[in-house]
This record gives sequence, C-alpha cells and structure tokens, in this order.
Amino acid sequence: MSKSALAVLGATDPSGRSVGLVAEDGQITEFGPDVSPPEGAEILDGSGMLVTPPLVNGHTHAAMTLFRGRGDDLPLMRWLKEAIWPLEKNLTPDDVYWGARLACVEMARNGVSTFWDMYWQEPEVARAVEDAGLRATVGPVVIDPPGGTGPSTGWLEDLDRCASFGPRISVAVAPHAIYTVGSESLERVAGIARERDLPIHIHLSETAKEVEDCVAEHGVRPTRYLDDLGLIGPKTLLAHAVWLDREELELVAERGATVVTNPVANQKLTVGRPFPWSEARRAGVAVGLGTDGPASNNSLDPLGDLKVFALLQRAASADAAVIPVEEAWRIATGRASALLGPAEPLAPGMPADFILVDLSQPEMATGDPVSNLVYAATGSAVHTLVVAGEVVSRGGRVEGEEEVVARAAEAARRLTA
Amino acid sequence: MSKSALAVLGATDPSGRSVGLVAEDGQITEFGPDVSPPEGAEILDGSGMLVTPPLVNGHTHAAMTLFRGRGDDLPLMRWLKEAIWPLEKNLTPDDVYWGARLACVEMARNGVSTFWDMYWQEPEVARAVEDAGLRATVGPVVIDPPGGTGPSTGWLEDLDRCASFGPRISVAVAPHAIYTVGSESLERVAGIARERDLPIHIHLSETAKEVEDCVAEHGVRPTRYLDDLGLIGPKTLLAHAVWLDREELELVAERGATVVTNPVANQKLTVGRPFPWSEARRAGVAVGLGTDGPASNNSLDPLGDLKVFALLQRAASADAAVIPVEEAWRIATGRASALLGPAEPLAPGMPADFILVDLSQPEMATGDPVSNLVYAATGSAVHTLVVAGEVVSRGGRVEGEEEVVARAAEAARRLTA
Repeated sequence: MSKSALAVLGATDPSGRSVGLVAEDGQITEFGPDVSPPEGAEILDGSGMLVTPPLVNGHTHAAMTLFRGRGDDLPLMRWLKEAIWPLEKNLTPDDVYWGARLACVEMARNGVSTFWDMYWQEPEVARAVEDAGLRATVGPVVIDPPGGTGPSTGWLEDLDRCASFGPRISVAVAPHAIYTVGSESLERVAGIARERDLPIHIHLSETAKEVEDCVAEHGVRPTRYLDDLGLIGPKTLLAHAVWLDREELELVAERGATVVTNPVANQKLTVGRPFPWSEARRAGVAVGLGTDGPASNNSLDPLGDLKVFALLQRAASADAAVIPVEEAWRIATGRASALLGPAEPLAPGMPADFILVDLSQPEMATGDPVSNLVYAATGSAVHTLVVAGEVVSRGGRVEGEEEVVARAAEAARRLTA
Repeated sequence: MSKSALAVLGATDPSGRSVGLVAEDGQITEFGPDVSPPEGAEILDGSGMLVTPPLVNGHTHAAMTLFRGRGDDLPLMRWLKEAIWPLEKNLTPDDVYWGARLACVEMARNGVSTFWDMYWQEPEVARAVEDAGLRATVGPVVIDPPGGTGPSTGWLEDLDRCASFGPRISVAVAPHAIYTVGSESLERVAGIARERDLPIHIHLSETAKEVEDCVAEHGVRPTRYLDDLGLIGPKTLLAHAVWLDREELELVAERGATVVTNPVANQKLTVGRPFPWSEARRAGVAVGLGTDGPASNNSLDPLGDLKVFALLQRAASADAAVIPVEEAWRIATGRASALLGPAEPLAPGMPADFILVDLSQPEMATGDPVSNLVYAATGSAVHTLVVAGEVVSRGGRVEGEEEVVARAAEAARRLTA
C-alpha cells in the first residue's frame, strides 16, 4: 500500500478514449485504458471528465489581486506610475502573502498547476504557493533605485529565501525591464543567473517607446541589447515581446529563449499591436501564454485568455486557420516551450499534474473537447486540479478558500482605501 | 399573501449599498435599502451577492450548440457553405428544440435573461425558451431559395406559430442578409414588419465583400440599400455592422436603429476589422452586445464576450479610456438600446429580471464590482438568474439541466457523425 497514491478511473482523454491514471509519490505511474491502482489509493471518479495536462501561466504578478482593476482606463506607463507603484509602496509582507494566496485560489480553480511570478517581497509569494499546493517559478523583482548605481541588493537575499522552499518552488532571476534596470545591473544579474544556473524572467518590448528609447540610447533594439549583455539563452523567459522584429525573433529562436505572450494585458494596456505570433512561429520561437498580473487583466484564467489569444491572432493575420486548436492547447499547457514544461501529454514517469474537465458543463457537452477547451470553456469547466499527486481543487473549489478570500479582500480594501 | 412573490434580502448594489428587492407577479415592486416582502414570498439570501440587471444577448442562433466548433478554422463564407449549411439540412424539429434548450441552460447559468435569435424551425426555439423560463425575440430566418423569385413562405407560418407562445416570447421579422435575400423579398418582409409593427433582425455588413458586392450591384452601400427598401428604423436590429462607414453610422443613428456587435464571432470568422464602435458612439448609434451563434464563438457567455469587446475597442483605438466600465456594462445589459431593454437599472415597475453575482468568487473578491463584471468575471460568477420573478438558475445550475445536456449531446453526435 502506497502512502500517497491516487488514481483516476473512467475518465476520457482528448481523443475520446476511456482512460485511467495512477499517481504515486507525485509521479504518474500508469496512464491508459487499463490501470491497476495500488491498494489504498485515493480514487477519483473520472466518469464524464476529460483528463488533460493543466494550464501553465507563464507570466504573472500574483499578489496584484490586491489591485485588481486599479487604474482600469490608463495605458501602461501611466498605469504603472499613477495607479500601481504608489500603492505598492505600502505593501506589507502579509498583504503580498494573502494577495498571492487569493491568486492561487483563482488559478487552482481555473486549472493552473504552475505559474511564473515576478514581484516585490517574493518570499511571501513562495510561501503562498507552498501553502496552496501549486508550483511556481518565483522571481524577486530587480529594479534599480532611482539615481542609484546598481540594483537594490534585497532581491538577492529574497532569492535565497525563495530557494529554501520545497520542490514545487523554483526561482528565477527577475530584472524588471530594460527601462528600470541599467546595463551594469543587467550584466550583474545575468552573471548571477549563469553562476547559479537559474532562469531569467524579464519584461521585454512591451511598448514601442521601449524600443525607441533603447535604440536611441544603445543603438540597438532591445533583444540585441539584452543579448549583448548575456541575458538571452535557453533559460530566458521574455514576457510580452510585442514589438520584436523579424531579426529579433530569429535571435530569440537561435538562443532557444521562450516568449510568453499576454494577449489580454497587452490589449488592456493598449501597447499598440498584438505579439507577432505568426512570425515568431515561422522563426521557431518557443511560446507560452501568460495572464500578466490580475491588476491589468483583470483575472487569472488562462483558458479565457487562450481564446482571446487565438481570436487576436486570427484577426491580426486575417487567417482563420492560423492557429490550429491542438497547437493553441499545447501553448496554454506549457508544452510548446521546454522552459515551461515537458512537450509530451500525460504519461508514466511525468509529474502527476493534471486536470479533470467536467464534460457535462453545457459549453463542453457538444463539439470537440480540444476545440472546446480553446474556444468554449473558461476555468469554470475545470472540476479537479491535481499537482504532484495531490488534489488542489475539487468540484471547482479549493479547501479553505473562504478564509483566503476574506483575508485578501481585507488587505485590498485597506491598501486601496 | 401573494401567489408569486419573491424577495432578495441583504444583497449589495454596484455602489456598495445594502439593498433588497421584492417582486410580485413578475414585476419589481420594491428595490432599496428597506423592503417589506409580502407574507409567503420566496426569500433569496442576497448576502455576499451583487444584484444587477441580467445580460442581454442581442444576436445568436441558439440551436447551433449542436454545431459548436464545427469548421473552427474556416473564414465566414467557407464556414457557412462548407461546414454549416450542409449540416443544417438534416436538422429535425427535435434537434432544434434540444439544441436551443442547451443554449438556454448555458445562457441562464451565464446570467442571460433575454436573447435575440434567428434560425430555421424557429417555433422549436420559441418552445425551448418557453420551457426554459427565459425571454427571447425569435425570428424565423428568411432566405430566398436559390434561383427562386421570393422567400420561402414557411417563415411566415413559423412567425405566427412563434407569436402564439407566452408573453416572454416576442417575434421579429428576420431576413438573413442582403446576400441571401433579394430586393423584392426584402421589401416584402419590410412591409410585413410594418403592418404588424414587428422588429426587423438582419445581418449587415459582416464582411468587406458584402459591401463591395452591394455597391457593384446596387450602386450604394448596404445600409443605404436597406434604408431605401424601408428596412432601417427604430425597431431594426443590425447584427455585426462591421464595415459601416461614417455616413452609414449616421444614417443608423438618425433612424434610431440598433447595432448588435459580436466581437468574438467577428474575430473568429476573420471578418477583417472590429466594429467601429468609437465612430458609432460619436454618431449616437444605440449598441448592444451579441455572442452570435455558439458554432462560431464557441460559447454563450456575454460576460466573457464583454471583456473581449472592451479589449478589442481599447486596442483598436489605442486609447485605454475609450470605453468606461459603466458604459460597457450598460451595453452588455441592453440598457444602451431602447430596442434591447429599458435604460434604467433595477427599479419598481420594471420586469423582475435580475442576477445575483457571487462576490465570494475569487475574481470578484477584490476591486470594483462593475469593473470586475467587465474585466474579471465570466458567467460562472453568476449565482442566480431571475426572469419575470421566477428563479431560472440557482447556485450556477439550472434544474433539469442533466437531461437537456444529454439530449442535445445525443442530437449533436448524430448530426455531426
């Protein structure tokens, strides 16, 4: 008898096949039409459920649930400077913890197993993820203090604290952007990332102005600038990359870096155009999907955002066939980037991370399941989320969510009063 | 004691005020901080709930749940001709009924009280709406048979059958489009609409080709063409209107007609550009929001589509302030068009149609409620839908939905096999 075994029986896979799944000690041990759960395993009834890999949210600032919708009608730079940064000065560690816990409840209910985060007081985010049972790659944000000569050093201490959590928490070096971190600091953080073999998580080319300013100051476009400083490699996650030109996309592909596109936040903050996904695809860029922070989205529902992404790319290309549903689904589940997740669907030997999607929901009841995941469902169709073999949400609910909602709402009210 | 009284106690209105609501015989009789429900009234606990007007879906083809996602990767005309029309030939009345019932379940759960429908065998849709407890304006579609000299006459018989249902069902004259109905037929249906004082529901200028063809054949753009035939008036609902120019928008505003924009379907079917909402607003056009049919959306969730609409208009105008959340919410609830609904929010004397939105959902727990309805929530945040004083959905579920889901799924499988 295994202490931590779990099995799903009688579920359906995306091809319509009846399948079961067995997980032991956090790993999938069996997956297919016939499985034999070990004695004592917790059994999940998969009847009427689709079993698939979970969603991966490739870029967010989870604790910003506290500022949801703040400065709704402002473009990016005014939104940051007028609505967000002034409020962030007052954040306590507890605020960040409960804000991130609320984000974890929302993401868990919406089928997200894993997210990439960048924020202030990031150890509190790590603690929230640990307590919530999710996975995350957390990056204490690096920003040069105004007028300073290098980044505040607090982030490095935070990085070490983040690294002390359990195996579901990974860390990344997270310089905010080229317009908030100078060349010297960028080189320094790149060096630290190399030494420690850590990923780099950075915002890149979100607005045209960022590109213009970079060209004016450094004589090259942002991707080349970062590459010259040693920041573009196979463990680099570039959030947004809206204004990359063909040469930059080819450079990103050559280096094996990943772009995480945030179609909802990009439109909301009016950054000027969609991520050039077709060109990125032609260049061979690895792509993931992100919600961005919930203050500029204003939700944490990658299934909803996946539809927006696909619609936007269809409209931008004037080509209804530009994004096949299978490919869209791979992108949303992190399977189109080695940095975000394994390329295969569920199989023995892989981490026991999966969702059960309720096929009796009206939007899932007719049509093809993968098409429905891309174009019809939102996170509310997710019945169960399992991460590392543990049930995180069930029946669309997270145990103890009431306290989390109350504590985060209280913090948000105080901060925005 | 009233036979059909219902009251909500302790709810919150969008301004944060604690309110109650009393409904008798399908009408709101009290709304405000202090209400006195009559003895015997059914009491709904509004604590932790936002009470607001429900969503109005201004344009759909409900029974197309049966074809959800069919021909996902095709542009509009190929989608119609290759994926949809061949399947529609095999529709039985029962198929249409169960397809529409499934749509009603999905819409009720998503907070839709009222929708405008256009389809084949429309009396079956009317029957489905009647049984589901929703409201609809149903329009038996008018299409000229190929090579014929006028519209099939079946639609007029269907119109009479639709008109025989209860007070929650209204009827509209529904010529499909200028490219499927000839001038003579259009004039004839306009005459019938005038005689019977019925609204007209028509697709207009969904693609640039429709405009080009109209100019080539008739020498004027589609809106002017329809106006010359007597089809544009205060009771006209124009679905899509993507390619209207300024002069056409001014004509629509002058006539007091309503445009229903379908931002999701427009992007999905790659019609080439967004509805020019800013220009329409400047011209004073009354606007509503539609999902279009679930085969080209592929869901029936106006709250989700509202976010897409707002994002699209922000992106298209490069102006983050282009669509204030209050205005977006008015559009989605039919309050920006006299044809779609009353302009006021909930008040005594109005039909007892409202939703209770669960403020303990994580996406509703922080931030402003109206902003959250526009940018954070999907239909899954809707806890209760009341139409004409009757509870249609409760706890996000519709009584008897299991049978509806099963029957519709069975019909869909057979039709698309």
